[in-house]
Amino acid sequence: METSSGNLFADIPERLAEEQITPLLTAPNIRIERIVSRGHASPPGSWYDQPQAEWVIVLSGSAEIVFEGEASPYRLARGDHLHIPARVRHRVAWTDQSEPTIWLAVHYR
Amino acid sequence: METSSGNLFADIPERLAEEQITPLLTAPNIRIERIVSRGHASPPGSWYDQPQAEWVIVLSGSAEIVFEGEASPYRLARGDHLHIPARVRHRVAWTDQSEPTIWLAVHYR
Repeated sequence: METSSGNLFADIPERLAEEQITPLLTAPNIRIERIVSRGHASPPGSWYDQPQAEWVIVLSGSAEIVFEGEASPYRLARGDHLHIPARVRHRVAWTDQSEPTIWLAVHYR
Repeated sequence: METSSGNLFADIPERLAEEQITPLLTAPNIRIERIVSRGHASPPGSWYDQPQAEWVIVLSGSAEIVFEGEASPYRLARGDHLHIPARVRHRVAWTDQSEPTIWLAVHYR
């Protein structure tokens, strides 16, 4: 039997020059990742424009996502989840600087 | 833009006659669910035998999963995740009785 396991809250780096992305599951139609942010945000004017849809949840810390063309950011705190359809341009406007923001992202097609 | 959102830790029932399963995302190749257990377990001798693979994480409480043919249960506490390949027979042997066990389950093919 093939199983893989781990803990989402283990081994959170104290310092991070860039966001840390750790693949947890990779299969043809799906990719599950842990993302750790420490105050990181998308560079100004930089947008994610993804060919696959994404379901994302914040499990520690907090963040703000902005969708292109919308005035207000979408704020995510612990437990908040959001579905981002393919090709919907968005960026991470802000993440918590006082504690790590731990995301679980499910990319699928 | 179509997005759906919510909070995984909201609206946890105080009492549950059976496990509560709430779909969070349903698409052709993927289904994401929240499962809330309050001391529930699979009936003795009853096994899950799923045509799709499952990635599961416990985000509150704790649980034990047993795979058929293995002597020891696999214990899951907060943050622990596990991949269960399709057709690997397993059951939930135990969940915490003192607090709700909140699972996030991703079924995919």
